[in-house]
Amino acid sequence: MRDGILVINAGSSSIKFSLYISDGDDKPLLSCKGQVEGINVAPHFIAKAPHGGVLNEQRWPDQPNLSHSALFKYMIQWIEAQLGDAELKAAGHRVVHGGSLYSQPLLINDDLMAELETLVPLAPLHQPHNLAPIKALKEVHPELLQVACFDTAFHRSNPWTAQSFALPRKITGEGVKRYGFHGLSYEYIARQLRQIAPAVARGRVVVCHLGSGASMCAIHEGKSIASTMGFTALDGLPMGTRTGTLDAGVVLYLLQQKGMTAKEIEDMLYKQSGLIGVSGVSNDMRVLLESSEPHATEAVELFVYRISRELGSLAAAMGGIDALVFTAGIGEHSPQVRERVCKHAEWLGVEMDDEANQRGAQMISTMESPVSVWVVPTDEEMMIAKHTREVLQSVKVA
Amino acid sequence: MRDGILVINAGSSSIKFSLYISDGDDKPLLSCKGQVEGINVAPHFIAKAPHGGVLNEQRWPDQPNLSHSALFKYMIQWIEAQLGDAELKAAGHRVVHGGSLYSQPLLINDDLMAELETLVPLAPLHQPHNLAPIKALKEVHPELLQVACFDTAFHRSNPWTAQSFALPRKITGEGVKRYGFHGLSYEYIARQLRQIAPAVARGRVVVCHLGSGASMCAIHEGKSIASTMGFTALDGLPMGTRTGTLDAGVVLYLLQQKGMTAKEIEDMLYKQSGLIGVSGVSNDMRVLLESSEPHATEAVELFVYRISRELGSLAAAMGGIDALVFTAGIGEHSPQVRERVCKHAEWLGVEMDDEANQRGAQMISTMESPVSVWVVPTDEEMMIAKHTREVLQSVKVA
Repeated sequence: MRDGILVINAGSSSIKFSLYISDGDDKPLLSCKGQVEGINVAPHFIAKAPHGGVLNEQRWPDQPNLSHSALFKYMIQWIEAQLGDAELKAAGHRVVHGGSLYSQPLLINDDLMAELETLVPLAPLHQPHNLAPIKALKEVHPELLQVACFDTAFHRSNPWTAQSFALPRKITGEGVKRYGFHGLSYEYIARQLRQIAPAVARGRVVVCHLGSGASMCAIHEGKSIASTMGFTALDGLPMGTRTGTLDAGVVLYLLQQKGMTAKEIEDMLYKQSGLIGVSGVSNDMRVLLESSEPHATEAVELFVYRISRELGSLAAAMGGIDALVFTAGIGEHSPQVRERVCKHAEWLGVEMDDEANQRGAQMISTMESPVSVWVVPTDEEMMIAKHTREVLQSVKVA
Repeated sequence: MRDGILVINAGSSSIKFSLYISDGDDKPLLSCKGQVEGINVAPHFIAKAPHGGVLNEQRWPDQPNLSHSALFKYMIQWIEAQLGDAELKAAGHRVVHGGSLYSQPLLINDDLMAELETLVPLAPLHQPHNLAPIKALKEVHPELLQVACFDTAFHRSNPWTAQSFALPRKITGEGVKRYGFHGLSYEYIARQLRQIAPAVARGRVVVCHLGSGASMCAIHEGKSIASTMGFTALDGLPMGTRTGTLDAGVVLYLLQQKGMTAKEIEDMLYKQSGLIGVSGVSNDMRVLLESSEPHATEAVELFVYRISRELGSLAAAMGGIDALVFTAGIGEHSPQVRERVCKHAEWLGVEMDDEANQRGAQMISTMESPVSVWVVPTDEEMMIAKHTREVLQSVKVA
């Protein structure tokens, strides 16, 4: 009997899934994946085979406001029909916030759900959407094991100094601290690195997760030491539409001098800033790199500059750097961005192999480079599947 | 005939002055200095000789609300009585904000004053107090040359990437950018370094201005390349009572989830955070270093950690570092803080000479240290006096 493991990553306007099938001890194999997108606007379900062929597509043109839960049920029914001789054994969920306490994936029960609800104020735009499918799935399959995998968990190994703002104790005591995000991606990269380059994995590594959300993480001996995202996913690098690190005095200025509301400021900082804000052209790095608009060029320049500054800061957090890793959309697919970041990082001992970089080799530094440079594709869903299977196995043993 | 140059540094609750006397081409010599403090609470004037002996002291116990301008007049009259055979030739003012345009000191006229008034929204807590004594002095001495010296000017040599947030063009176009502050201190240090160690002054230097306000600046070939303070003096390092860099998402959280007002948040971030917020004990580094309270120890630890991270980031801005300079209260007088910062900076090539550090020598690194380390006392008033005399001489020539 083969085990089916369902991975769910739900946001405000989409629910993504991946179905993995696993034979005993083997690595889980992706069976199919897909998503419901356009929720509340123009719902659209699409499911694909691992290498991209469309398996199913469904639209509801007459029901634009079809509920999350109705769409979720459609999705689950379609997935169950794909199981064949496999049995659905567990579902793993990406949950953005695990607060101060949770440093590893956890089997979900009512107590944990209640606890995770209390973290909603820390991530009001994401946490409720992450928790909704857990409840919906419990209604359909009350006995199914469900596992929460937290995007913050990997960073709980940071020293307290990296997790702290210099705020009054009363506020920090209420949970206003630097949580860091993209943890499932960084953990996946750290595990991959153990396979690809075990000696590097034991060293001091900075991973650049450069996608439409972008952050960087300092990892020493496989453990997160510091990262660029903070209390929220707004902090750190400029992103597709997010500003990244900003003087808090700017927010006070927008409130007090410009008379903007908190909601207007939130929209500006999350949705109208970053690459789109600076370029006025696009939030997509590919478009910016091909554009001849001076502002597009400047957006790329600022993105690279800020990566370079954070690289120095993260190296300082570890007392040096042995390796640099690029991952996620831009990191995996933009030799131009990698080249420019590496050029700025020559002072740290980075020597890029231009030819290897252009063809997207796994190692893109020269053999002599004091700091080795790698391109490692990330796979957060696979990380959740692995975590879920590990929790499943520990439950079986117990 | 000797020239008198008056330097004024005015804040919300105090007006500081220094009187310099200069013989032609010589370096201006400090004649006396002092301040009115406790304005609107318990006004108190005190004037001292260069080496600290009290020359005059005055209190107004029956007039706690005596106006800025009345107190300023008392101060000016006292100063004029000290001139002896010297003639008051010019007054130089510290003006916190010179906006995007002003990269050097300027002779004040009505047009400039009007321009500086437009910058008040950028520094509402400081700029009005800087401008008030210029107007007051003009009333008493309409013909006196007055010079504005901007705390932002030195950083206008930063590349645009170091001056920019990834915000929408509309907002950055209105002047929301990284100005940097403590510029008069950094410029003074850069000039001093030319005397003390000319080769170092041509290299890549990070200066740590560590006082109750604290910031750091990357200086290459005497020019500012990047600094830790941003749009406001809230950004960057934690300070006596200021938080330093903070995820802007925290401000949104305090507004939206905690229901705090902008004013309450401003008070918290400017007055209840930093060393006092983390320690709960004191905003004074000397007190914290002597305290046995665990939270006091943690405040020091976080301060040092954040300096260390910024040091890596500023080194990245210059593609490396040749020298490290400590200045201002903590930087000049705390061998413990210097030692801990240098320990964290060993990865950059810093080798401290412990004995030299303990006795507060000018150079506190070993002779072999790849990165040399210096303690250089700062003197913002002397920088203003020098600038003022230079403007005075250029006016004479013209």
